[in-house]
Amino acid sequence: MMGDETLSRRLVAELLGSAGLLCAVVGSGIMAERLAGGQTAITLLANAIATGAALAALILMFAPISGAHFNPIVSLSSAMNGDIKWRHAVFYILVQVLGALLGVALANSMFDLPLFFASSKTRTGFGQWLGEVVASFGLVGLIIAVSRRHRTIAVALAVAAYITAAYWFTSSTSFANPAVTIARALTDTFTGIHPADVPAFIFAQVIGGISASLLFSWLVPRKS
Amino acid sequence: MMGDETLSRRLVAELLGSAGLLCAVVGSGIMAERLAGGQTAITLLANAIATGAALAALILMFAPISGAHFNPIVSLSSAMNGDIKWRHAVFYILVQVLGALLGVALANSMFDLPLFFASSKTRTGFGQWLGEVVASFGLVGLIIAVSRRHRTIAVALAVAAYITAAYWFTSSTSFANPAVTIARALTDTFTGIHPADVPAFIFAQVIGGISASLLFSWLVPRKS
Amino acid sequence: MMGDETLSRRLVAELLGSAGLLCAVVGSGIMAERLAGGQTAITLLANAIATGAALAALILMFAPISGAHFNPIVSLSSAMNGDIKWRHAVFYILVQVLGALLGVALANSMFDLPLFFASSKTRTGFGQWLGEVVASFGLVGLIIAVSRRHRTIAVALAVAAYITAAYWFTSSTSFANPAVTIARALTDTFTGIHPADVPAFIFAQVIGGISASLLFSWLVPRKS
Amino acid sequence: MMGDETLSRRLVAELLGSAGLLCAVVGSGIMAERLAGGQTAITLLANAIATGAALAALILMFAPISGAHFNPIVSLSSAMNGDIKWRHAVFYILVQVLGALLGVALANSMFDLPLFFASSKTRTGFGQWLGEVVASFGLVGLIIAVSRRHRTIAVALAVAAYITAAYWFTSSTSFANPAVTIARALTDTFTGIHPADVPAFIFAQVIGGISASLLFSWLVPRKS
Repeated sequence: MMGDETLSRRLVAELLGSAGLLCAVVGSGIMAERLAGGQTAITLLANAIATGAALAALILMFAPISGAHFNPIVSLSSAMNGDIKWRHAVFYILVQVLGALLGVALANSMFDLPLFFASSKTRTGFGQWLGEVVASFGLVGLIIAVSRRHRTIAVALAVAAYITAAYWFTSSTSFANPAVTIARALTDTFTGIHPADVPAFIFAQVIGGISASLLFSWLVPRKS
Repeated sequence: MMGDETLSRRLVAELLGSAGLLCAVVGSGIMAERLAGGQTAITLLANAIATGAALAALILMFAPISGAHFNPIVSLSSAMNGDIKWRHAVFYILVQVLGALLGVALANSMFDLPLFFASSKTRTGFGQWLGEVVASFGLVGLIIAVSRRHRTIAVALAVAAYITAAYWFTSSTSFANPAVTIARALTDTFTGIHPADVPAFIFAQVIGGISASLLFSWLVPRKS
Repeated sequence: MMGDETLSRRLVAELLGSAGLLCAVVGSGIMAERLAGGQTAITLLANAIATGAALAALILMFAPISGAHFNPIVSLSSAMNGDIKWRHAVFYILVQVLGALLGVALANSMFDLPLFFASSKTRTGFGQWLGEVVASFGLVGLIIAVSRRHRTIAVALAVAAYITAAYWFTSSTSFANPAVTIARALTDTFTGIHPADVPAFIFAQVIGGISASLLFSWLVPRKS
Repeated sequence: MMGDETLSRRLVAELLGSAGLLCAVVGSGIMAERLAGGQTAITLLANAIATGAALAALILMFAPISGAHFNPIVSLSSAMNGDIKWRHAVFYILVQVLGALLGVALANSMFDLPLFFASSKTRTGFGQWLGEVVASFGLVGLIIAVSRRHRTIAVALAVAAYITAAYWFTSSTSFANPAVTIARALTDTFTGIHPADVPAFIFAQVIGGISASLLFSWLVPRKS
């Protein structure tokens, strides 16, 4: 679907998409926390609905150009399965992190906060790490299974629905994305994560993502 | 659609899908109860949205492989209507229960709770049993009607929407699935059910499911 | 799409669909009111989401059989535009009212309330009547416009989305359906309407529905 | 898709669609504020869900007739990219403003308020202006990208999802539409904006919209 796009267009799409995703995640967290007056369930509900809805829009928007990864473990899995070149996966990942940082800076600025300021929110422990393994396994498995058997609109709906649900059903609220995790260390707001807790989250995400990639390439073979 | 899948792939799909479903139902219930501070309506709203969204994702993910039953009364109805072999239905049901148990254990673990611990939540009485008959009749009828006339994406949306609604419109919050009911007896959290109340729920589900299967195979004849 | 269905199947579909719709509207209202402890905004949010989601499921389920009207003003408009025979429209309307009554009785029973008990909730005044004209005009116009240019899945999504929105944007919470209005007079719960207020609501609905039918048959001509 | 529609039909579609949009935005804001008793997060949640859902319905309804712009910056971008004639864009914009005013008057009337009454709600400052640039850039980019690569149903879902999210992730709650902004100055309710703050919002919207139009016509070239 994206074979005949130039690499520059694909990288711009990944940059804009990752920026948009972080804008949505962080911005909606700030707005919800400000309005909810300490009612955390309502804050997370708004945050989950906004993130899922933004993902649906961004995937429909950029999938025909770059595949709409916005996520290093998705690009890693794509390279493992031969869907994109390893060299391109490296560019994708760099641009995703850059875009994610841009998105956090935009969200912070829109709400009159500093461009970047480190989060003080502790997110650690076995339960949350297991949460990240589960969230990332499910996300990568979902993307492989749905994109090999359905059209883009189904991928967009499935990923959006999955993340909305996973914000609630994982103890870590489902980061499931190393670029998102890094960027969220740079906002001391509802969706932040203490920089010291980032490496363990990313490790768990890579474990979950690679496991799913291996299992689902057997479970859902590419149609010949 | 799933005729040329090996049985092993189909059973793995049912296992993973049932595990994912229980992860979503039980995990989101725990998270919502912890955050909502006693506001039960918001807890159920988060639980209903997360469950519906997870179902949409899981059905798109696994329907091309196994049919995405995740539910013994759906497999029973499929066997009654000749869509799958009776022998396969037995395997499906065993694997669904196994997957559901796995999902509950994962959800409990993610939230630092024991793998399994019996629920103390009473769910009984005529109103709730009628709720389970209605919920199961609607679910099985929906699946027959939509899967015989529409594509998979419509089935995924319809089942997700139906369960989100049925959490609210049935007095029992719509279990509508014997594997889910058994597994939910093993978590003493928001979505739990006292083990003693399980048999009557399952009986009501089978009544509702078989009635729908008989009525809808007349109402929506398979296209020749 | 429904030309070769027998009339009996079509009437059973309208009966079941109207029953399911009222089950969802009334049942979710009761559940939400019980759980929300006086927080009316959360009650209406749950009620709106459950109603919209149920409608999406029911339309996908029954549209290939009967057209999924579940609503006398939709059947009236269909007859005016020659989509169904006038004689069939009369049967449709009778069966819709019957199904709606059955649905209310089921919802009341599931929540251990009397089968039928008159509502004491006053719904009257110019603002609310205007609300019903607007809601019904929009609903009938939507159905004509979307069903003449898109597939069933788009109709299901559009009607579900419209009703979810209209619960909030009309002052009357958008009954927009005479069968629903009559049935909701028979439950003294969140979604009830005082029997004395029913005729004016139905009058407003017929005005809105007929206006839309006339305008939209010009605006969106049937493709020849 | 809309090439063979008469201009009169297209303008009626833009009028009705813009009226419906404002009805939904303003009406749901009034209802939500009345019911939520000061819980602003719940008010915005209802407002965002109602607006997104109404947009999905209105786009499916009117896109085959007029393209379903309902928004001067969308019509401006369409003219810039040669999708509609400049002369028609002018008519579109006039009719959108007219329809938006009609919608506000209807919403106010349904809730027994004056037809028009100026808002006293201050919305100003760098953060909110940046919010409007971001919201408008995203909206126009989304519409170009999705409408050039997908079918109408995907456009409807994407725009609805985007606006639901952007209500939360932008500090300005995402007006992103000059006709909407003008009309919302005329209701002193939840979604109002002080007339003095309108020009800066519109300026930010035009900046965002034109930037997106230029960038996305390179990023997503029309398929030849």
